Amino acid sequence: MSYLDRIKACHFWQPQNYRPFILEGDSRPLGWVTHAFAKRLKDFPETFLVSDAGVALPARYGDFESRSAVLEAALRRLYAAGEIPKWRGEDYGIARRWGAPPLFRMERGAVPLFGVLAFGVHVNGYVLGEEGPRLWVGKRAKHKAVAPGKLDHLVAGGQPLGLSLMENVVKEAGEEASVPPDIAELARPVGALRYICERSEGLRNDVVFCFDLELPANFQPRPDDDEVESFSLWSMPEVLQRLKETDDFKFNVALVNLHFALRHGHLNPDSEPAYQQIVEGLSGVFSA
Amino acid sequence: MSYLDRIKACHFWQPQNYRPFILEGDSRPLGWVTHAFAKRLKDFPETFLVSDAGVALPARYGDFESRSAVLEAALRRLYAAGEIPKWRGEDYGIARRWGAPPLFRMERGAVPLFGVLAFGVHVNGYVLGEEGPRLWVGKRAKHKAVAPGKLDHLVAGGQPLGLSLMENVVKEAGEEASVPPDIAELARPVGALRYICERSEGLRNDVVFCFDLELPANFQPRPDDDEVESFSLWSMPEVLQRLKETDDFKFNVALVNLHFALRHGHLNPDSEPAYQQIVEGLSGVFSA
Repeated sequence: MSYLDRIKACHFWQPQNYRPFILEGDSRPLGWVTHAFAKRLKDFPETFLVSDAGVALPARYGDFESRSAVLEAALRRLYAAGEIPKWRGEDYGIARRWGAPPLFRMERGAVPLFGVLAFGVHVNGYVLGEEGPRLWVGKRAKHKAVAPGKLDHLVAGGQPLGLSLMENVVKEAGEEASVPPDIAELARPVGALRYICERSEGLRNDVVFCFDLELPANFQPRPDDDEVESFSLWSMPEVLQRLKETDDFKFNVALVNLHFALRHGHLNPDSEPAYQQIVEGLSGVFSA
Repeated sequence: MSYLDRIKACHFWQPQNYRPFILEGDSRPLGWVTHAFAKRLKDFPETFLVSDAGVALPARYGDFESRSAVLEAALRRLYAAGEIPKWRGEDYGIARRWGAPPLFRMERGAVPLFGVLAFGVHVNGYVLGEEGPRLWVGKRAKHKAVAPGKLDHLVAGGQPLGLSLMENVVKEAGEEASVPPDIAELARPVGALRYICERSEGLRNDVVFCFDLELPANFQPRPDDDEVESFSLWSMPEVLQRLKETDDFKFNVALVNLHFALRHGHLNPDSEPAYQQIVEGLSGVFSA
């Protein structure tokens, strides 16, 4: 087991099992659909143009609202038919990259089935002491659909349409760890990670924005929703040993923790032979 | 002008103007040689196997010492003929990646002509104050071969064979800025950058290891070699404005400064539309 196993786990996908999801007339992939799901989408000829080469949204839906409306109607029927396992009631804005205008909105539960770019926020909550930072680690509830029982961050969440990243950090910090807004607002943006990987829920094609939040030593986070069961403080050697030797951390949390360790000087390029590969793997340029 | 111009400048190269430099029998490129230089290398048939497809070191030189010796003999003749502009008297270890065993050593002055992977260290020297970090900025001497008169880091240097990165940081910190070893040793490794770009000296195919060094407010760096003329302290808004509006910083120093700004929360993904592209560009996955 090694750090690179954590990175490989976030970069495992087999392009030959997918076809691109595009806007008709523009060949740049917005996402990736399995061949099986593409065949299912043939039942919606008004919404999806399905060929062996890809799945396209028809060009006659030429703006955000018309694309979003026709998609939602099809997705509701797919949900009723059991093809979308869970309706989250939360919209993601689907864009070519962060900062580009969203082309349409999509129910969060459908996002991994279309393999479209999704954004999220992860917050490293830590306490500074003489021996360096200690990181708040959450244990995910066993009933979660994604990564049940895995180790998690203080705060992490998908990015819904209509909120800024910082608004989302503050909202999730309150919901997941009872962090008051005046503390959550001190979170600093410190970079982003990129990965594409196959998971049980579908294809995760994610940009994760990372934030550092230094917390007072006497602050005790507590779960305020059903996401996490409990929180505890871990030293960086404890975090790194668990990362290196097990896959107990949720797949993308492992990456954010490696990013934290890199930025805070807890990995040493003179002694860690995989240092360059770890750096490259955190931005999606990993090659084994 | 924008931050992305700084990133584009570090990722400009035209692969069609180069052919791969390999070990005979192993097609993975170790470096890239211009077609013109490849033709010149035909004068050394004992050392280089030159074809339209590439330039190879013969397999009969099967270990580090024999490859290094035959290369050095050829490089000395190329230097005498004026094909290598400067003999630095410093060896780089040429490897497939950081942490992999060096395959041979190469005189530093020849490295950009072969476009082989080179390593370096850059140190962000800063002073913390109430308004955040202020960065020590050097002004390069006008007579330097590379980037004369440009703005530079407190300490930066290529990585010679036989030193650890931290030993190199300490050595360069003393030579370039008169930083005593007990202070230089406090530098923390905080990540690495990757770029391939065409420069006047040849093809720079670099991994730059970044270090943060917090300095006492009363510490005054002074140049101890002829690299830099003078140092001054800049606020992050000053650094960022100069980065955005000019190319006054040396090409790779601009990248390290963007990396520093990202890690320390001075770029905001909610207000910087190029945030994702900046993150990707710092690891060599930039696409305009």
